[in-house]
Formats: sequence, C-alpha cells, structure tokens
Amino acid sequence: MSSAEASREGAPHIGVLQRGPLGSIADVKGVTVGHCTLDDGAVQTGVTVIRPHPGDPFLAKVPAAASVINGFGKSIGLVQVEELGVLETPIALTNTFGVAALAQAQIRAAIHANPPIGREWSTVNPLVFECNDGYLNDIQALAVSEQHYNDAYEAATTNVASGSVGAGRGMSCFDLKGGIGNASRTVDVAGQRYTVGALVLANFGRLPMLTIDGTPLGRVLAERATRATSKPEQGSIIMIAATDAPLDARQLKRLSLRAAAGLARTGSVYGHGSGDIALAFSTAYTVPHESDFVVLPPVLADARLDPLFRACADSVEQAIVDALWSATSVTGRDSHRRLSLHDTAPDLAQLLN
Amino acid sequence: MSSAEASREGAPHIGVLQRGPLGSIADVKGVTVGHCTLDDGAVQTGVTVIRPHPGDPFLAKVPAAASVINGFGKSIGLVQVEELGVLETPIALTNTFGVAALAQAQIRAAIHANPPIGREWSTVNPLVFECNDGYLNDIQALAVSEQHYNDAYEAATTNVASGSVGAGRGMSCFDLKGGIGNASRTVDVAGQRYTVGALVLANFGRLPMLTIDGTPLGRVLAERATRATSKPEQGSIIMIAATDAPLDARQLKRLSLRAAAGLARTGSVYGHGSGDIALAFSTAYTVPHESDFVVLPPVLADARLDPLFRACADSVEQAIVDALWSATSVTGRDSHRRLSLHDTAPDLAQLLN
Amino acid sequence: MSSAEASREGAPHIGVLQRGPLGSIADVKGVTVGHCTLDDGAVQTGVTVIRPHPGDPFLAKVPAAASVINGFGKSIGLVQVEELGVLETPIALTNTFGVAALAQAQIRAAIHANPPIGREWSTVNPLVFECNDGYLNDIQALAVSEQHYNDAYEAATTNVASGSVGAGRGMSCFDLKGGIGNASRTVDVAGQRYTVGALVLANFGRLPMLTIDGTPLGRVLAERATRATSKPEQGSIIMIAATDAPLDARQLKRLSLRAAAGLARTGSVYGHGSGDIALAFSTAYTVPHESDFVVLPPVLADARLDPLFRACADSVEQAIVDALWSATSVTGRDSHRRLSLHDTAPDLAQLLN
Amino acid sequence: MSSAEASREGAPHIGVLQRGPLGSIADVKGVTVGHCTLDDGAVQTGVTVIRPHPGDPFLAKVPAAASVINGFGKSIGLVQVEELGVLETPIALTNTFGVAALAQAQIRAAIHANPPIGREWSTVNPLVFECNDGYLNDIQALAVSEQHYNDAYEAATTNVASGSVGAGRGMSCFDLKGGIGNASRTVDVAGQRYTVGALVLANFGRLPMLTIDGTPLGRVLAERATRATSKPEQGSIIMIAATDAPLDARQLKRLSLRAAAGLARTGSVYGHGSGDIALAFSTAYTVPHESDFVVLPPVLADARLDPLFRACADSVEQAIVDALWSATSVTGRDSHRRLSLHDTAPDLAQLLN
Repeated sequence: MSSAEASREGAPHIGVLQRGPLGSIADVKGVTVGHCTLDDGAVQTGVTVIRPHPGDPFLAKVPAAASVINGFGKSIGLVQVEELGVLETPIALTNTFGVAALAQAQIRAAIHANPPIGREWSTVNPLVFECNDGYLNDIQALAVSEQHYNDAYEAATTNVASGSVGAGRGMSCFDLKGGIGNASRTVDVAGQRYTVGALVLANFGRLPMLTIDGTPLGRVLAERATRATSKPEQGSIIMIAATDAPLDARQLKRLSLRAAAGLARTGSVYGHGSGDIALAFSTAYTVPHESDFVVLPPVLADARLDPLFRACADSVEQAIVDALWSATSVTGRDSHRRLSLHDTAPDLAQLLN
Repeated sequence: MSSAEASREGAPHIGVLQRGPLGSIADVKGVTVGHCTLDDGAVQTGVTVIRPHPGDPFLAKVPAAASVINGFGKSIGLVQVEELGVLETPIALTNTFGVAALAQAQIRAAIHANPPIGREWSTVNPLVFECNDGYLNDIQALAVSEQHYNDAYEAATTNVASGSVGAGRGMSCFDLKGGIGNASRTVDVAGQRYTVGALVLANFGRLPMLTIDGTPLGRVLAERATRATSKPEQGSIIMIAATDAPLDARQLKRLSLRAAAGLARTGSVYGHGSGDIALAFSTAYTVPHESDFVVLPPVLADARLDPLFRACADSVEQAIVDALWSATSVTGRDSHRRLSLHDTAPDLAQLLN
Repeated sequence: MSSAEASREGAPHIGVLQRGPLGSIADVKGVTVGHCTLDDGAVQTGVTVIRPHPGDPFLAKVPAAASVINGFGKSIGLVQVEELGVLETPIALTNTFGVAALAQAQIRAAIHANPPIGREWSTVNPLVFECNDGYLNDIQALAVSEQHYNDAYEAATTNVASGSVGAGRGMSCFDLKGGIGNASRTVDVAGQRYTVGALVLANFGRLPMLTIDGTPLGRVLAERATRATSKPEQGSIIMIAATDAPLDARQLKRLSLRAAAGLARTGSVYGHGSGDIALAFSTAYTVPHESDFVVLPPVLADARLDPLFRACADSVEQAIVDALWSATSVTGRDSHRRLSLHDTAPDLAQLLN
Repeated sequence: MSSAEASREGAPHIGVLQRGPLGSIADVKGVTVGHCTLDDGAVQTGVTVIRPHPGDPFLAKVPAAASVINGFGKSIGLVQVEELGVLETPIALTNTFGVAALAQAQIRAAIHANPPIGREWSTVNPLVFECNDGYLNDIQALAVSEQHYNDAYEAATTNVASGSVGAGRGMSCFDLKGGIGNASRTVDVAGQRYTVGALVLANFGRLPMLTIDGTPLGRVLAERATRATSKPEQGSIIMIAATDAPLDARQLKRLSLRAAAGLARTGSVYGHGSGDIALAFSTAYTVPHESDFVVLPPVLADARLDPLFRACADSVEQAIVDALWSATSVTGRDSHRRLSLHDTAPDLAQLLN
C-alpha cells in the first residue's frame, strides 16, 4: 500500500484552486475511507468504503444526490437517494459482480447496529457502486464477500490510499492501470471557506483519448505503443464528491453533475458501455431517522454555487489524474497485464511539459 | 397453491374493457411466471420470476421502461433500463432483504448460459424488485437464497397463481393479506388486437383507504374492525405490465406511468414510505445482444396509445383486486396474522353491491 | 360571475379530511387569484393569475416544484423551476395559443417592478400554463393579450370564482363544460395544522370516464346521451397546489405528483393528447433574490408527509368536481356548445346517491 | 455578413475526426439555417432559425430529444419534446425576452400552413431557445418581433454564417464576443458514413476559463488584460446537434448529453446562472402527423454509438471555437463593447502554438 500512496506527489495540479492538506476526499472533515484489496492470482479486485461521518448514517442520514451521466451501470440504491435526498449507509464500491454481496453486507450491518430495522422501523437502503474490472480480474469467480465489506469498513481512515487498491485493484483506465483516485479543492464563498473532496473509481477510456491538464498525452502514447484502440468503451467511472458546504439535496444534485465537466476534460465522451455516475453529499448537517422536523443550517444561495461547481469539476479531474498517477502495474487473470502510467511513460514529466 | 388460485373468480370486473382468456399477465403470449413460496413458521416469503419470453433475454433483449412513482424502494437494475430501454434478465420479485441474493442468482445464471459475460462481452444487468414483508415474515433471517430464484425460474408457467404465493407470500395490503395479483385487458387499436397484462406485488395501503371498483369498502371494514389505522404507509407495490403491442422504450415509459392511475383508484396516494414502481415491457420484438442495427416493427403512433393506457390502468387496478381476492390468510413471525379479504368480510359480495 | 360562484355548494365532499373555510386555494394564507374572462361570440377564453403571496415574487421567490404527468403541453417556465426549485412570477393560466402573450406580459411587469432585470440582474422566468380550449373558443384568433394578464393580476382576491371564468371560460371536461376548480384540505401534522389548497384548470376527459366520488356517473350520462365518445383524449389539466407547510423543493415535487392520484380517481388515465401538469408551492418561507444564504424554517420530515399527500390528492379531486359543479353552459365558435354538468343532469343529486 | 463568414478558416481542428465539406450543421443533408440580425444602436440582437428539413415539420415531425445540463433558462417547448420525442416546428433561437414573440410567430406560421391546427387537429408545440444578450443589447426594448422570425425563416440556406449574426449578434462568450458557431464531423459506423453537425449559440464563460483545444488561452489573455473576472457566470449556451444517423428519441437524448463533454473542454463547468441546453435531432426519418403506425428504418444499435458520441462532443467544442473565431467586435447599449477574439489577441496563432 505504501507504494500506491507514495506516487501521488508530482502530478500536475489541475486548475487554479487550492487543494486541501491531504489532497483527498478526507479533506472534508469527518469523511474516512477504507480499502480491502484482493490480490491473489486471477483475483485482482477489492472493496472501498466511504464513511461520510464517524457516526451511524442510518440514524444520522446524510444529504446526498446523484447524476447518472451514462447509465450502463449496476449500482444499487440510487432510486431511494433520488426520492429522499439522503444516504443512510456508507458508500461502497466494488466490481460489477460484487454489488450484491456488499448490499447484503450493508443490510446485515445495519440490522446489527439497529435491530428495529425490518421490524418496527422501515428497511435500510444499501448504496453500492461498481465498475467492471473483468480484464484483469476473474470477475466470474464472484470473489467479493460480505467479509470484505466489513474489512474495508473497519479500515476506514483519513489516510486514504489511491491507485491499485480496494475497489480499484483490477480497474483499467485509458488502457492503462486505473483505480482509486483522490483530490480536493478549497474555495471561499460568502465569507466562509469550504472544501470539496472527490474520490473516483476510474475504469474508463481508451488510450488515444487521454488528456492530462489539457495535454493530449494519450495520442502520443498510443502512437508510441501502436496499440489497438478500435475497441469501444466498456469502462465506467464512479465519482463521489463530498463537501462541508451547507447544501440541500437539490443543490447536491447540481453539484454532482459538475463531475461530468471534470470527466470530459480527461478525454471522456461518456462512452456507451460506461456507467458514469456521480454522487455528491454534504457533511454540513444530518437528517435524523426519527423526527418531526429537519433543521437545516442556512444553505448557500444557488447564486453562490459557482466556486463549488468549479471545485467539483477540478477535484474530479484531479482525482482521475491521481488514479493514473498512483496506480501500480498489475497482472491478473489469463496473464492480462495493465501497465501503470509511470511504467508506460518513464519520460512522463517531459511529455507533460 | 390450489386454494390461492381458486378464489380469483367472482371478483368485480374493473372498467369496460375485455379481459384475456387467462386473466393474467400470461395472456401476453410468451410470458410465463414462476413462484417459489417459503412457508415455514416465521419465514413467510418467497420469490416470483417473470420470464418475458421463452428464450434467453440476454441474447434477445426486451424493450422496457419504468416509472418510479414513489422511490422509497430498493430495486436493482433500473439505472440501466432507463439508459438503454431494454431488460436482459427475467424480472425477479422478492422481499426487501432478498434482493441481493436474487441479483447474485441472476448474474450466475447469465454467466452459466453465456460464458463470455464478464469476459469478452460486457456484464449483465440484474433486475430485481422488492416489497417489505416484515410484518409477517422474519425478514432479518435473510431466508431467500439463490436456489429459490432458480426454483421460481424453473416453475415458470402460463398457469399463473395469485395471492399468498411466491414473493407475495408475506405481503400485506390495506392491512389485509396482499400478495401477487394478475389481470389482463385486450383492446383494438389500428385494426389490430393487443393485450396488456399486469402482475402486481401488492403490499401497500391502510384499511380505510381501500376502494374496490369505486366502492369505499375500507371505510366500512375499518369501522367494523375498529382497527388502529393511524400508522403511516410503509408498504410498496411493484407493477409489471406486459404487452404485445409494438412500442419503443419511450412509449413503454409512458405506458408504465398509467399504472399510477390504476393504483390511485384503489385508494393509494403513493404514500411516503412506499416503493411504488411500474415497469412495462413489450414482446413485439427483441433487441439482439450483438448487431449493428436494431430492426423494429412499425410501432404504434403515440396518438393511438389511449386504449393501451386504459388497458394498463385497468389491468393494474384489477390485479390489485385480484391480489386481495386471491390471497389466503397467513400467520407469520411473532404470531402476526393477516386475514384475507374473504376472511375479513364474509359478506363481501353484499358489501360490493 | 356570481352564478359561477354560487353553484359550488352541494357538491359531494371527497374523502375524510376537512376543508378550509373558503374551500379554495386561497385557504392557504396569502394566496390570491384573479380572473379575466373573455366572453365575446367566438372568443370564449381568458386568463387566470395565481399570486403566491402579496409581495413581489421576483424579490421573494417561492419554493416550488412540478410533476409532468403527461407532457403533451406547452407550458413555459418549468425548466428553471426544476433546476432552481423556486418560482419568481405569479402563475398564469390561459389557452394554448395565449401562452406567449402572457409570458411577454410577465416579463414586462417584472422589468417594470424591478428595472435591473435584464441589466445588472439576471433575467426573469415567466411561468405560464395552458390548456386547449379550441372546441368552444376561436383559439386561432389569438385573442389573449398582455392587458388581459394585467387585468387578471389586478383582480386577484381571496374570493376565488370557479367554473366558466378566467382561463376556464372555454374549457371542456368529460365532454361537459369544464374550467376552473378550487378546493382545500387541512391536516394536523407534527402538532401543527397545515392547509393544502388546489386550483385546477380542467379540460380533459371523455364523458364515459367521468367518476365522481367513486360513482361512475359518466357511464350513466353517456348511455342517456348516446353521445359519440370514441374520440381520443385531446384535453389537458393544470393542477396547482399551494400549502403553508414548510417543505423544500424536493418535497414539493413529491407533493405535486400526488395530484396524479386525485386526477386518476375522476376517471383520467392521463390520455396521450393531454398536458397533465401539477405544480406545488409552499408559502412557509421565501427565497430572497439576493443573499448569500437561504434560511429555511425547520422543514417537515419526509416521514410526516402522508397527510399532506392525501390532502393534495383529495384537493385536486375535489377541485375537478368543483370545476364541473361550478361551470355554466357556454356557447362558442361555430355554435359549439358545452352543457354544464347541472344542465346535462338535472337529476344530479339522485344520480350521485 | 461576409466578414462573419470569412473568418472561420484558420481555427484549430478539434480532435481526430474529419469534418464535413461545409463545416457547419448544414453538412447534415436537408438542414438549413437562416439569420435575421438586428444591428441598430442599443439594439444588438437577432433571430436564428434552423429548419430540420425542407418540408413542413408539423406534417413530417422530426425525432428529437434534449438534455438540460443547467436549467437556468427560459426555453419553450421542451416538455413536449421530452414526452413525444419529436419536434414539429423549426428550431428558433433568440434573446431571452424574444422567446414569446418567436413562439407566437411559430404558432401563427403553423396555423397558416395547416388551418386545422387548433381546430380538428391538436395544437402545435413551439420550440424556442434563448440566451441573455443583455450586456450588449437593450434587452428591455423587447425588439424582437414575429416578423424577424419570418425573415430568418425565409433566409434559411445551407450557406450558414457564424459569429455576430442572427441570435448571436449580441452574445458574449468568455468575456469576448460570442455568438453563432458551426461545425461538423463525419464518422463511419457499421459500414455507413454518418454526419453530426452542430450549431451553438455561445454566450457563456469568464475569460480565465477559456480553453481552446486544450490550451488555457484564457489565463494568458486575462493576465494580459487584467480584467475583472470575479463576476459569476450569467451566460448560457444552446447546442443543437443534427445527424443523419438513424436514431430513436431515446438514443438522441443520449447523443445530446455528449454536448456537455464538448462544452466542458472549452472551460465551462456549467455555471449556476447559465442555461446550458442541448438538443439533438435526426434527419434519417420523419414521423407523420397522422398515421396508425410509425415506420422506422433500422436504428443503430446502442453499442455502435460511440463514434457518434465523439462526433457530437467534438462538433460542439469546434462550434464554440468557431463562434469565437467568427465573431466580429460589437458595440451596443450604453457603449458596452465586446472585442472579438481576433481583436483581443492579434497574436492568436502564436498563442495557440
């Protein structure tokens, strides 16, 4: 894990906004992330869990909303998030065929923590996102289990690793090794300083499309590699944005859509075979499970959202770069191998100048 | 099961349109339904599987679309149905905490039938709906397994049982025993005869709201029973409409929303705690998994859809009545008991006159 | 106008909730309504304006959201309402071809009241809804002008007329005379009393579908009249719900959809050729045009919304009945004539028993 | 006008796809565009009309769909396009306060061409988009009239001007002169060659955000100009994509969303005060006003759409560049002046190298 973490330094800084001290989604206070990495021959996959706050999100629900930019995806839980504007479990990420196991794990954990669930209380809404890591990982093995969810949950920390870890273990991005990416930006709005943090699970794109900070790096690398690139997009990206700005669910939906701008700037046109989904949540307040009224803090006026929109777009673009920058090369099933960006382009620094 | 089937006769006929010969969703040619019922003490639940055609829906995908009328629900698969306008697995119904097991079962079955899934081909999109049967069923037991999906799938037939069977085993409706309901209507449009069939999983409503064919039956029964009825809605209804009319996905979305009209006429106002979801599919053509073009038959002009809209609304209302009419009384966890409509109102025929 | 107002009494009371003292949308404090009626030979049309509060809604915007139940309609302004969750002009209703004139009038009025609009400030979002009154009204005459908007605005009062007045002048409903309808309901939620008021512009339906409080009145009247009824739906209904309950825009969208339940109970299946649109707004707080933050009162928990959902559905159903009950017979272009419900069924009281 | 047309040459070519012979939306066969430009002191505005085919779109409706990327906009007609998946008038563009006049003009033109509209037939759905040109144009003058629509319609040609013409006359983009932009791309899909053409009305962005083909040109120009740039986004962009590829409305909605990728690559993060709306239509078939069935050609499989998605994104990005490249400097109300990109950066060619 240390190698995955180590390499984040040195990546180009996207845009003009400042980053937070950690440069990860954990710059939003209270947010922690845990990974469980499965690295065993043909099984190259894992689980990543984002805890929106240190408490129990079922009792203290978190305002949230999502934008489905391209819906070729198998996430679980978005119907209820759209209706109610809250999430009530940690956010789980894994491979496409691991979604069911994680949903089951979330249900079991929620019942364990709150025995009235499914009895006097209503049920719980699992929230699981996925990308297809089937190139490197033997996805047909259905290797992800409930225990892996629990392990990732227990590992949650503010010291968030990026790259070929957790759910990112088997992911590919621009025909390179992809995976987990992190970034953050801070902005001053209405006399307050707010942070937007992003965590992405990057598993999309064909090499010639890759653009880093405006440089069409992918074209250069593709010519060099003479790689076949005619295959259609079958990847995906999950983009989770956290903020401490006081926003309601409608505003968080607006914020989440700005992930599409950051994604586009890396070269994506939201390919057909891609599940491109962004979810944004706020840590500025919570919604109690049982109460007559919900007390919101003063929420930002919509006319003040532009800095946050930019922070979201920039964080997502930076997080995608971070995923590429942090990833290490991985060999998986049938000797499939994805080289990291660094292993593909040892002269990366020069190429980006 | 024979008792569940037997009682359908005698229910009032909703509206002026004719029903098909079976009075079930299977009146749409090619559609079959299988139930797996779990009836074991505190475990009162089950699985229902709707096969849209006799073939493999992954290879011959089925045009489909859904309307989320109230999104307090945990269905799996709707993101991709919305994006691509097709379903590619059978439709599975179960209790809220059984969703993950069925999704896993669908994944495994799809891989088994089509080994390139998750390899050269893309992944498969499970499609599972649920209602919360936690009043009668020990939902925390997580009793539904992958095998139950396979059993329901194998049992698929045109001889579709209604009532306290399959996924309907533990469901409640208007504080009475609910469950699976079926109905169909035929209409003449543009010189052709088309059928709309509906299957519902009815698990919603409080007794005083119950309205059957315009008669406020629930008020009468509630007064008689002096039941507490102040509890908020925590139920749900899944409404599946099939048709042999040639419609594209946009039109099927329009059709699916008309389920909301049928639902409202039984007394529902789409309560907060309810997952009210309707999905419509057409059997008039299929979409191949691999091809350059999709050849559609001439599709009905939108201006010709009114008879189908009415058929959908009437079928759904009739199917809800059928669920109540067909259900048998069930005792479940902690001696909770739901009386059937017939057991609650032995003088039902008189009350409806 | 007095005759239009007079006849509201005597209509059946829908459901079990209490109505407010006025039985109109003006039971929500601060809401007023003005009509301008054009009754001149072939020109049988008009304008209705709903003012959400006595102030300037551009400076004190009103939380609002809409549900498009069937989108065969030409309303103006919903894109921005969906994005921002507020309305910033009065709500205007008229015939389909009068929409542009009213939008122009709203723009001009907003500029007049706030000269920075279109200069230092952003623009203003007109909000105009319509139904097609072309059976009675010579809609091709484009008779509605900006002045008619101003006249309706100036006439706004809490003494709200229903029936063949304002935008309802030329409307038809169930092949009878339709038009403006009003209703209200009060509910106790979380220790507070809240009101939901509805105003509808009812212009939909074919006679055999008409259902009043569960009674299939239309079938009886259609048999009696031997009227041709095979024509498809080409009508529309606009349903405006106001409430003093503290709800945010996401919750108001949920509330607005419950209008579909009330509409369905009158016999509608949301026909193809119909623009069925519901908008809900709250008077519990306003959103200032210029500010850094928006201060909301404690908003009701979603789990407490069921009484309001029912109040919305019941109000809308009652308002449709009110439109039929209040309307007077009208003769318009080419000697087209719509009989009122009362003129069609002099024995109405008996038919409904 | 010749100067506006002349300057398009020399702009950088975005991406790797080939353009069509005209480099405009008119590369999609049958599409024509007309401008009416108002250039009179403080009145600097106009009208642009896109005719999707040479016939009457009311009788031969055009499959279409839209994506609202940011809904701070006052377009007319999208509700019905969303429901029915067709457009039935030409597409009109103008300033925010000219929308009503153009809608009225479209209604009048449709009645004139088809007298049964508003009588035996249903009504017609105007389709008008807008941006706010209030910085240069005296938008409060409400100078756009119905006649201007007719003039633009009559002027429709395949020789499409870009820049400070038509609806683009008063528009600003990245604090420079914006306006109308055009582009096209051709792709080979499934053995066929298809064209995507784009026309944009570009009126968004602050200078420091401007990115041309990956080069952050705006930062350089902003430093040089020391312009105030802290003002929030109040602009908008309308993006119209045409294609001859056989797509249904659902697919066209997917296509339209890819405009967001092209837009993001120029520096936009879809600012709060922006109406960012994309509409896509296909010329591959039409939908008759009156018929029982709609006959579609074989439509492209969704899995074949990636080249079209890229063509849409690239066309939109190129069209935005074209708008900047083609625009001439304009002085308008209160001596407000917008310099063209060329006048701002005489050394443009060097800056982009």
